[in-house]
Amino acid sequence: MELFETIFARRSYRGMYDPTPVPREDLQKIMEATLAAPSGCNKQTTSVIAVDDPELIRQFGELMEARNFGSAPAGICILTEKKIAYRDRSFYIQDYSAAIQNALLAICALGYESCWVEGHITDADRIGRRMADLMGVPENLDLVCYLPVGKPADEGGRVKKLPFEERAWFNGYRK
Amino acid sequence: MELFETIFARRSYRGMYDPTPVPREDLQKIMEATLAAPSGCNKQTTSVIAVDDPELIRQFGELMEARNFGSAPAGICILTEKKIAYRDRSFYIQDYSAAIQNALLAICALGYESCWVEGHITDADRIGRRMADLMGVPENLDLVCYLPVGKPADEGGRVKKLPFEERAWFNGYRK
Repeated sequence: MELFETIFARRSYRGMYDPTPVPREDLQKIMEATLAAPSGCNKQTTSVIAVDDPELIRQFGELMEARNFGSAPAGICILTEKKIAYRDRSFYIQDYSAAIQNALLAICALGYESCWVEGHITDADRIGRRMADLMGVPENLDLVCYLPVGKPADEGGRVKKLPFEERAWFNGYRK
Repeated sequence: MELFETIFARRSYRGMYDPTPVPREDLQKIMEATLAAPSGCNKQTTSVIAVDDPELIRQFGELMEARNFGSAPAGICILTEKKIAYRDRSFYIQDYSAAIQNALLAICALGYESCWVEGHITDADRIGRRMADLMGVPENLDLVCYLPVGKPADEGGRVKKLPFEERAWFNGYRK
């Protein structure tokens, strides 16, 4: 799929998923794309676990209390290590967010749907930590995002965005 | 250009740039791709200013003390508004980072080089604020990243990354 076509086709899908398994080959391609994103001072703070074990995904669905995301036959877990890039500065959020965007585009280009699930699993109840514990992820890595992967069972929608002129200009603010 | 090909071709280019101007049409496409990234709770916290005014870019190069980035005939300024998404949570860093990744891919697919310039302009000396002031950007928006855009004048390099097996697994940590 062509880059610009993929960028404009990508959407956040919150419906139920078709249970047809996702081939390992596709999950591998998604992970390779994820890790190809840049990172501040090349600290490579992001790592990734693809899940296609039905029992693990069932437990994730229960922890997230999300029937829709739990119905996807596969998922991508985004892990981060809060490393310092230089002096007191860390770019781990920038790093994993760029990696997630690559993952979402790869998922879309391969014909699947997904959704960036972050706020819900990184809230005070630490659902992400409990998901990480199920996979033996050590404490120095945080599971900050879950991306379901699968074909859609519903139609799904698309959010409305502000017009281009409200967010983009040339050589000056609102020019 | 195909998505996966673009993702693996993209690199951080730190050399000098060829002075040939970048057509407005290309800058427009890059900005559209930038704004097509998702944002937490669809708050659309990111906005963007493309620059191709040689005098403005000359001043940017001086402020950044970066002959290489200042030599690019065009650039993309990434602006963010630190809006709350819900309760006390904001996802503006995630939002602009996903947008930047889209921008970098778009720049690469159109045959140009770029580099994610953030840490240097958001440090205590607030170079980004001085760049923003030159463009009349109000105080509620922060200029957090500059992306030079142009053809390369040098060969440039590519950073080395850890092997896939050190950063990606299936159904469990290091599995």
